[in-house]
Amino acid sequence: MVFLKQQYEEKVVARNNQTVTLHGMVHALRDMGGITFLTLRTRKGLIQCVCTDKSALDGVSEGCAVAASGMWRIEPRAPGGRELTDASITVLSRPAAPAPVPLARKKLDLHLDTELGLRPVVLRTPRQQAVFRIQAGICRAFREFLQSREFTEVHTPKIVHAGAEGGANIFRLDYFGRKAFLAQSPQFYKQTMVGVFERVYEVGPVFRAEKHATQRHLNEYTSLDFEMGYIDSFADVMEMEQGFLQYAMELLKSQYAADLALLGVELPDVERIPAVRFDEIKALAAEKYGYSIRDPYDLEPEEEHAIGRYAREEWGSDFVFVTHYPSKKRPFYAMDDPADPKFTLSFDLLFRGLEVTTGGQRIHDYAAQVEKMERLGMDPAEFESYLMIHKYGMPPHGGLGIGLERLTMQLCGLDNIRRACLFPRDRTRLEP
Amino acid sequence: MVFLKQQYEEKVVARNNQTVTLHGMVHALRDMGGITFLTLRTRKGLIQCVCTDKSALDGVSEGCAVAASGMWRIEPRAPGGRELTDASITVLSRPAAPAPVPLARKKLDLHLDTELGLRPVVLRTPRQQAVFRIQAGICRAFREFLQSREFTEVHTPKIVHAGAEGGANIFRLDYFGRKAFLAQSPQFYKQTMVGVFERVYEVGPVFRAEKHATQRHLNEYTSLDFEMGYIDSFADVMEMEQGFLQYAMELLKSQYAADLALLGVELPDVERIPAVRFDEIKALAAEKYGYSIRDPYDLEPEEEHAIGRYAREEWGSDFVFVTHYPSKKRPFYAMDDPADPKFTLSFDLLFRGLEVTTGGQRIHDYAAQVEKMERLGMDPAEFESYLMIHKYGMPPHGGLGIGLERLTMQLCGLDNIRRACLFPRDRTRLEP
Repeated sequence: MVFLKQQYEEKVVARNNQTVTLHGMVHALRDMGGITFLTLRTRKGLIQCVCTDKSALDGVSEGCAVAASGMWRIEPRAPGGRELTDASITVLSRPAAPAPVPLARKKLDLHLDTELGLRPVVLRTPRQQAVFRIQAGICRAFREFLQSREFTEVHTPKIVHAGAEGGANIFRLDYFGRKAFLAQSPQFYKQTMVGVFERVYEVGPVFRAEKHATQRHLNEYTSLDFEMGYIDSFADVMEMEQGFLQYAMELLKSQYAADLALLGVELPDVERIPAVRFDEIKALAAEKYGYSIRDPYDLEPEEEHAIGRYAREEWGSDFVFVTHYPSKKRPFYAMDDPADPKFTLSFDLLFRGLEVTTGGQRIHDYAAQVEKMERLGMDPAEFESYLMIHKYGMPPHGGLGIGLERLTMQLCGLDNIRRACLFPRDRTRLEP
Repeated sequence: MVFLKQQYEEKVVARNNQTVTLHGMVHALRDMGGITFLTLRTRKGLIQCVCTDKSALDGVSEGCAVAASGMWRIEPRAPGGRELTDASITVLSRPAAPAPVPLARKKLDLHLDTELGLRPVVLRTPRQQAVFRIQAGICRAFREFLQSREFTEVHTPKIVHAGAEGGANIFRLDYFGRKAFLAQSPQFYKQTMVGVFERVYEVGPVFRAEKHATQRHLNEYTSLDFEMGYIDSFADVMEMEQGFLQYAMELLKSQYAADLALLGVELPDVERIPAVRFDEIKALAAEKYGYSIRDPYDLEPEEEHAIGRYAREEWGSDFVFVTHYPSKKRPFYAMDDPADPKFTLSFDLLFRGLEVTTGGQRIHDYAAQVEKMERLGMDPAEFESYLMIHKYGMPPHGGLGIGLERLTMQLCGLDNIRRACLFPRDRTRLEP
């Protein structure tokens, strides 16, 4: 038996003009005659190592994992403002083959299928790293903001006995001889947890068996969900989301500046997000851009795009809340507007012309929920454990779900949602 | 169109001797003659409201969601050291039926099946809330600690084309006509992401189709995974875990004291965790407690228990790392010990006699990984996209997976893992 060391110590604390050993993978090697520049890919980003002694580079090639020892210098002329000089290199591991694409090139411009097929390697490029660091930053902001607002994190099951969204777009599996499904959203569970903690959030996977093959659909994605009690109206939910977005943009600006700069991301202004009724904005956009409305109950992709453009041009905002969606298109737990039950107390948030959030107020009264289910031809008995929360008392409440990949895609200006997902799942893609 | 309010404002900021309005559900009502004590269940915990005016309580019953207006007082004699006096109550919603169990009772002592069947309501009791607040605290500690150590959060797919653990214990589903599986762990993906970010973590669901019906198995659970590059040995991974546990216990002590006190939880000492070889501790425990070893390649539950007891009695520790597991029992990506390839450079962490973590060093060399797969009768071609990372270069690396529910269960002294999972999934349970 041995005891572990009492405190975990990081191996590298680099100070100016000190000898240090860094670890990383050889990203690029440039022989300039008497001097060789070795770019090291580390968890702190790319670091330039300057090697004057050729023999210190024996057997070193791109793709090797190495330890680089040398003098750490704050050097404004070096990329990133720092470098390792007089570097000597120890190889820790070697690749079996050179990378299939030139990872050190500024932009790869690969065909999407090629890129996704080679994802495990292509992700090693700085631009791809930047996308997913920003994505991690969004998640971090979501949790930090909600925690400061006294939300409690929950983990709810992904194997379920009934879908929250209904319909055919649900994956089925055999669960020890019983029929089960993959959760389309944590809806029932997060509502349940409002009865417990009042305010809850969850960051987790959701599954949609949609046969889409579009640039904005995935069959598995990460949903940022929250749900809160004691709302006066669904405006409370929208304001909470606006608060999150404000916090997120501040966090990205202060902590992820290098990643934003690399991708040329301009952060949106989220000081005051406009909110407009579904029927109102539909008419406004159609009138301004001279098209006719085809589907009065939903927004088509082109319409979302037009509304995004309208919000940008008329109200100077990259975001716009579209409120009061038709009841026909919202699920059974959505609360109808007492002023006009053809519409619901609900909203979508569009970001640069793409829906990134769906939310609203939920029915909390037992009789009202049972009545609506029956009106829609559903059998309340099948939802007994969900209806327990209404039966034994629920506060007025509402919440939302944000598509993490969609938010990342729009923020980073990507042309396909698959580029905003580490290992995307679509109709034909199950690996890597 | 309207603009949202610029800043989200919380509705309640309670100060001593100020009139405030609180929201919550009526947890208990005690009529003491001229005075009525109403206990409000809020997201800040239970708050006692003192009502002297009976008419202010008209129609109020347990299970109602209410707004309570009154004078906020710091009052050391009240439960929690604060109360709302001269309270008047507005009912926001009413239950359709009284709760099926007395939620205000200190301990419910329900049969497990009854408790799980009524979970949506039973979770509203303070003891259950405490368990899951502590669980949220563990997750928070995991992320905060790893973030401070420059780990990046990742989200990897749960629908996969091959299982990381192999074997029959995997859920199958139909994926648009193709065979797919639910991920048993994020193993392949977190290793892949070491090649990208060097240090990564993920908190997410994993799925095991095990036919167990034990007190310590779930078919879906939350796994806290991390993976790190440039390790000198798997001791680096164990030290990182010890660092996390130290951080977690400090965070719980400072931020979750009321929950710990309510459950009577004594936090374990994690200053120095002992590490001992698998074969060594097996022999030591068997000798000390006088039993014979039945399975030389694995630890049976009773043996884990004995080892936990041994670590407590001999080394004063609730935790013990058991290292160098036999290669036979570890997956194909585990690195064998060059000193004796019958064993692996791996470990489990036992907490009070129960395995809560499995980890170790992974093979990073392409040829070595292919060779081991072939030796085990696997076809490397089936793992082409995974092997890409080895082929194009990987640093020495290792990592672990922690079972969140097991850690919660052992910490809170629960007798069944189902009590440490909001909505457990076992062989017979698919709802709530």
